[in-house]
Amino acid sequence: MTHPIPMVEIRRGGVAESIHHGAAVVADADGRLLHAWGDPEFLTFPRSSLKPFQALSLVESGAADGLDAAHLALACASHRAEPFQVSMVEAWLRRLGRPESALVCGPALPMGEGDLADAVRAGGKRRAFHNCSGKHCGFLAAAGAFGRPEGYEQPDHPAQLHWLAALSELIGHDATALPRGTDGCGLPALAMTMADAARAAARYAALAVKDPRREAAMRRLLAALREHPDHVSGRNRPTSKIVAATEGRVVLKEGAEGFVIGFVPGRGLGIAVKMLDGASRGKMAVFATLLGRLGLLPADRAAELARAVEAPVLDSNNRVVGEVAAVALA
Amino acid sequence: MTHPIPMVEIRRGGVAESIHHGAAVVADADGRLLHAWGDPEFLTFPRSSLKPFQALSLVESGAADGLDAAHLALACASHRAEPFQVSMVEAWLRRLGRPESALVCGPALPMGEGDLADAVRAGGKRRAFHNCSGKHCGFLAAAGAFGRPEGYEQPDHPAQLHWLAALSELIGHDATALPRGTDGCGLPALAMTMADAARAAARYAALAVKDPRREAAMRRLLAALREHPDHVSGRNRPTSKIVAATEGRVVLKEGAEGFVIGFVPGRGLGIAVKMLDGASRGKMAVFATLLGRLGLLPADRAAELARAVEAPVLDSNNRVVGEVAAVALA
Repeated sequence: MTHPIPMVEIRRGGVAESIHHGAAVVADADGRLLHAWGDPEFLTFPRSSLKPFQALSLVESGAADGLDAAHLALACASHRAEPFQVSMVEAWLRRLGRPESALVCGPALPMGEGDLADAVRAGGKRRAFHNCSGKHCGFLAAAGAFGRPEGYEQPDHPAQLHWLAALSELIGHDATALPRGTDGCGLPALAMTMADAARAAARYAALAVKDPRREAAMRRLLAALREHPDHVSGRNRPTSKIVAATEGRVVLKEGAEGFVIGFVPGRGLGIAVKMLDGASRGKMAVFATLLGRLGLLPADRAAELARAVEAPVLDSNNRVVGEVAAVALA
Repeated sequence: MTHPIPMVEIRRGGVAESIHHGAAVVADADGRLLHAWGDPEFLTFPRSSLKPFQALSLVESGAADGLDAAHLALACASHRAEPFQVSMVEAWLRRLGRPESALVCGPALPMGEGDLADAVRAGGKRRAFHNCSGKHCGFLAAAGAFGRPEGYEQPDHPAQLHWLAALSELIGHDATALPRGTDGCGLPALAMTMADAARAAARYAALAVKDPRREAAMRRLLAALREHPDHVSGRNRPTSKIVAATEGRVVLKEGAEGFVIGFVPGRGLGIAVKMLDGASRGKMAVFATLLGRLGLLPADRAAELARAVEAPVLDSNNRVVGEVAAVALA
C-alpha cells in the first residue's frame, strides 16, 4: 500500500494542529483510473454514498412511478431531519399506509441545533429523524412493489438483491461477493475498493448500462440529485453548495466515515474520496479541490468553494480561531 | 518527518473501514525520549491536556487554600456537565461571589444524552455546562488571588503568565515563545512538540522542580487527578477506567483533537499521545496499549483495557456492528 496522502490541515494560530490523510480516485466509464491519490485498492465501505445505487431498487421496481424528483432525492438522502424533510417522510409513510415503526433505522434526533431542541421538547428521538429515513421509505416502497412488504433489511430480500445486481453491472464483477457489514441504519453495508467505487460512479454518470429501463432510472436519479440537493443533505449544506457552484455539472453523495462519491455526467467521470480516518471534516474541501484539478471549476473558484464547504474552527463564543485547509493534491 | 503510524483500525464486518494514524512519545524527567512512535518533533496543541499545568496558577497563587481535591480535579477537568459537576461549578461561583457570566467559556450543552435533554427542557445552553467551566472557575479564583479579578483570559494576565513560567521550567525553555492560538473555550492555547509535552509531564510526575511550593502544588494536583478521575472527565469514562486499572499508578488528562497526556509518578515518566487527525476515537485505546508496552499493566490487561475505553461501533438500534481496535505499536 502507498503511504497515505496528507489532504487537509486543521490550523490554529497558524499551526497545523491536526492532519487528515485521505485517498481519492477519478475513473471513467471504461473503468480506467485517470487520477489516484493514495491507494486506489484501499478497501472500505462507501456507506451512504451508495444510496443513489440503492435507490435503483425503488425506481426500477416501479415503486417510484408517480413520485416526484424531490422524493427520489429524499430516498438518496443523508438528511438532517429538517422540518421539510421530516414532513416528507411522514407523508410518504402515509402514502404507503405504513407506520413510522416500519422503518428499520433506529430512533435519532435531528442534527441542527434548533431542530434538535424542538425535537427534545416534542418528545425526543424518532425513526423519522434518522438521517436514512428517506432511504428506508424508498426500500419500504420497493419492498411492496417486489411483493414482499416485510424484511427489506434482509440481505436476501429482493429489494436488496435488485440493487446489488445493478451494482454488479456497474463495477463489472459480482457485488454479492463483496465483503459485507451492517450500516449504521441496520441495512447491509458493502465494502469495495476506491477504484470500484469511482468506476461504478463513472458508469452511472455515463448511463453505461445495457437495460434502457436501468438507464432511465439512473437518468431520473441523477436529475433528482441535481435538482434537489437540499433534500439530499440539507439547506445550505456542502452538497447544495457544490451542485450550485458547478451549475449541476457535478452531483454527489456523501457517506459516513469520510466518504464522498461524485458523478460527472457530462464527462462520464466518477469520483471517490475517502478520509482515511473517517472524518467528515475536510472531505468536502478535498472534493471541491478535486473539481479544480479536473477543470470542472476554475482553480480560484474551487479554492473558494473548498473554504465555503467547511465549517470554520470556532471557539465556544463563535469567534474564528482556526481553519480547515485543503492542502494541494500532489 | 517520519511517516505517520497506523494506530487504530475501525473495523466493520471484519474490514478496516477507517484508520487513525498517530504519534506517541514517552519521556523521563531527564528529558530523554525512551520511546517514540511517529514524529516526536510534531508540533501541535495539547489543548486541555495542559489543564493540570494551568491549574498551577490556581494552587501556587494560594487561591486553592481551603479547596478540597475534588475542586482541584474539577479545575483540571474536561467534564461532561453531569449534574454533580455542574453543582460544583455553581457552588464554586457562589463561593467566589461571581456570576456565571464571569466565566469566559461560551455557553454549551451537556454531553450525555439524558443530561442534554434535561438541559434543553430547562432552558438550553449555559456557560456552566461548558466542559472547561471548572478550569475557568480555577482561573477566576487565581485571578482574584493575583489581585486582578478581571481579564483572566488575556495572555498577559498574571494568572496566565504564572503557569507559563511553570511550564517553562518543565520544558526547559521559554514557554512564552511557543506558537500560540486560541482554545475552544477562549483562553490562550500553546503549541509544543510531542517531545516537549512528554518531557513536561515526566518532570511534573517526578516533581522535578526547584521551588518546594511548586513541588507541593504538583503533588496536590497529581493526587487530585488520582483520587477524583470522575470529576476530571465523568463517571464511567475512559479516564476513570484507566486510573482504576492502574490503581492510580498512572493519571492522565485528555485534550481536544486527539491528545492525551499521561503522568507516571512512580517511574517519573511522561506520556504524550496524539491522533494526527484529531480524532477522540481511538486515543484512549492507544494510551491503554502503551501502558502494556511500558510494563505498567500486564499485556492482556492492557488489551482488555484498550477495548473497555472505546465505545463499540453500534448501529442506530444499538447492535454492535464493528469495533475500535488498537493495532500494535510498532
